Amino acid sequence: MSKLSGFPEFLPAERNVELAVLDHLRSVFELHGFANVETRAVEPLTTLLRKGEIDKEVYAVRRLHADPSEPAELALHFDLTVPFARYVVENAGHLQFPFRRYQIQKVWRGERPQAGRFREFTQADIDIVGDGELAFHFDVEVARVMAEALAKLPVPGLSITLQVSNRKVLEGFYLGLGIGEPTAVMQVIDKLDKLPAEKIASLLTEQGLSAEQAAACLALAEIVTSDTSFVDQVRALGVEHELLDEGLTELAAVIDGCAGVEGVAVTADLRIARGLDYYTGTVFETRVAEYPLLGSICSGGRYDQLASDGKRTYPGVGLSIGVSRLLSTLSASGVTASRSVPSAVLVAVTDEASRAASDTIAQQLRSRAIACEVAPSAQKFGKQIRFAERRGIPFVWFVTDEGDQVKDIRTGDQVSADPDSWTPPKNDLRPQVSYKETPK
Amino acid sequence: MSKLSGFPEFLPAERNVELAVLDHLRSVFELHGFANVETRAVEPLTTLLRKGEIDKEVYAVRRLHADPSEPAELALHFDLTVPFARYVVENAGHLQFPFRRYQIQKVWRGERPQAGRFREFTQADIDIVGDGELAFHFDVEVARVMAEALAKLPVPGLSITLQVSNRKVLEGFYLGLGIGEPTAVMQVIDKLDKLPAEKIASLLTEQGLSAEQAAACLALAEIVTSDTSFVDQVRALGVEHELLDEGLTELAAVIDGCAGVEGVAVTADLRIARGLDYYTGTVFETRVAEYPLLGSICSGGRYDQLASDGKRTYPGVGLSIGVSRLLSTLSASGVTASRSVPSAVLVAVTDEASRAASDTIAQQLRSRAIACEVAPSAQKFGKQIRFAERRGIPFVWFVTDEGDQVKDIRTGDQVSADPDSWTPPKNDLRPQVSYKETPK
Repeated sequence: MSKLSGFPEFLPAERNVELAVLDHLRSVFELHGFANVETRAVEPLTTLLRKGEIDKEVYAVRRLHADPSEPAELALHFDLTVPFARYVVENAGHLQFPFRRYQIQKVWRGERPQAGRFREFTQADIDIVGDGELAFHFDVEVARVMAEALAKLPVPGLSITLQVSNRKVLEGFYLGLGIGEPTAVMQVIDKLDKLPAEKIASLLTEQGLSAEQAAACLALAEIVTSDTSFVDQVRALGVEHELLDEGLTELAAVIDGCAGVEGVAVTADLRIARGLDYYTGTVFETRVAEYPLLGSICSGGRYDQLASDGKRTYPGVGLSIGVSRLLSTLSASGVTASRSVPSAVLVAVTDEASRAASDTIAQQLRSRAIACEVAPSAQKFGKQIRFAERRGIPFVWFVTDEGDQVKDIRTGDQVSADPDSWTPPKNDLRPQVSYKETPK
Repeated sequence: MSKLSGFPEFLPAERNVELAVLDHLRSVFELHGFANVETRAVEPLTTLLRKGEIDKEVYAVRRLHADPSEPAELALHFDLTVPFARYVVENAGHLQFPFRRYQIQKVWRGERPQAGRFREFTQADIDIVGDGELAFHFDVEVARVMAEALAKLPVPGLSITLQVSNRKVLEGFYLGLGIGEPTAVMQVIDKLDKLPAEKIASLLTEQGLSAEQAAACLALAEIVTSDTSFVDQVRALGVEHELLDEGLTELAAVIDGCAGVEGVAVTADLRIARGLDYYTGTVFETRVAEYPLLGSICSGGRYDQLASDGKRTYPGVGLSIGVSRLLSTLSASGVTASRSVPSAVLVAVTDEASRAASDTIAQQLRSRAIACEVAPSAQKFGKQIRFAERRGIPFVWFVTDEGDQVKDIRTGDQVSADPDSWTPPKNDLRPQVSYKETPK
């Protein structure tokens, strides 16, 4: 059996890194009152194909022995936004709006596998959705929640920037310049990551913009500030439009609202357009300085119409983290967990006849929330210590006639210990995340 | 859009019950040193069809625009055992044996949907797998771990019985009776749940058993004890066989090993045969007295060959809980969570101009791990309290000029409070699981 390309699986130590990240995200989201939801893995094919552009990426699902009479085909969801929108419409009568939810699940895309692109991967989304209307302060809130989540990721040595923009700024600016089709310009500006500025300028003039208009669009896209000084810089370009004013006020509120979050940079970055998505105001992307090729690991924005059932419209604002892409990159860079098991302690077994005594010690430790396991066989203690070492278990507990002893096998220190009171250092209670070598 | 039959989705309060159960299971498994693993959702169709019997239940998965040259078709996994066996063989060089893992994931079966049968559902498995050999004491260990997990499920009013048997007891007994094909007898005995004893007796005589042999098989199957007295009861039937002796010793060890676990009944139950599975020793099923129609919610046993790559064989022992089946039954019986959101506190907003003050209070509470949310709009306080009430949030926090006040909206009690020291009662920190009405 060979591994399936595009379907990554983690070894236990790598999975411990993922668990640490997912636990952290869940904790931040729940502290901010986001309720958890899971949706089924499949949606009717017709629901997914409505999004048009990605149809070739969908995995169709069918019972191997389906009747010809079987109804519409199903497909695996390719993101968590489309299923969530369906869930909101389907359960609207049972939900309290504004409804804030987080959702952490696998998604599937049938893309050709390549570095950092998976066919199965995990996303972690937060969204706040309103019934009919959704106050702007929720844009500030989701930004702050995600900034906090990114700031405190349990992975050392990451310099993360949450880049915020607002499509009203871009669209208002283009309209103020007298450009008739602002959306088309946004889609070109969105390529600034991949193409040089001159190429973007020529693409814009091909669209009928004058050289001056193209230059102004590029000047706007160059504005990046870590405070609200971007407002003055935009004003200095001398373009006036009501929508621009509205966008600048909103964007300044988001940047101000994130000002207190330490450990992450939050910038107003007017290069960010997210031209191919259906956002209507605030938009987000996220870069990790150490991994420029990773692209945006967390994106999102405001949809005036996240969902609709024809009668009611549900506006929303949210962000989605690409957990698998981030983790596989970190894993390839040597980020790992201090151990492959939850156990902080291996309780040694002196001989098989006294295994029950070791089991009792283990139960006493567990009753105080210390994860442990009992040695699989009563080998020589040196072998039992090496068993712990191979798993990264930091402590070995010996049950002896002269009283119990616990050894820190990293330092060799061995001390007398009472299973009803001994506690490992806090950092040893759970696997720790770190780089195998010095971070590059 | 209509709901898809067989693909259940929970509302937030129901999902909170599921989260409480899954968190509990994870905590018990990790305290016992089980490492978490997730496997991809798909396996090559050929891997899954090797199990033969369930082929008509498999969901095939295919890229909508797959090339004709695309390799072997994929299918969604229908349990966690087959993928885990593949994972063990594939990663054997990187795993430390005996390898203990837990795995909590969705599985899919294309069965006709019916009450309690789903097409998508969650299983929670623990297994310990060895390289070449696996000591018997691991059978005792997995039984005890799962008994502890079942005993402490965070759902009130469940009377759970973990029923343990051992195929060596049954097979040895049948061989001792002079029966040539013990496996065929086991498959008939396995139907005792569904058919009356007379019918089983006539099925056995149809297989060539004498009336005395059939009666002895049924007498064995009637033995159920909550201690090791089953050994004497079996001996009293006067059958002798080496394999029977071995099985009795093993089964007695499992029952003895679980003796200390309170809150769950653990019985030696010789009706349990699991005739259609590939178990070779210990076997487990689990019944909930309040829900007899639910069937076994947690089953498993010892495989002498959990996995094999042709050269090496990996014996294993484990159990699998059918989480979705249990939860949907509980949900239908009125089990729910005390609230639909994680928030213990709603911080009221006096007017939109002072929203920042409410945000600051919320951050102070969060810094002490108290989940909270800020009111969505500065409505009259009565409306803000009703907003909290509809979500089940127990406390509303008021920011006033005369100092902060917090109200328990269930009792109406309102007291002065300091956001740096006030703490809700422990039971209010997280959603609690209970019955909507008195349990039936």
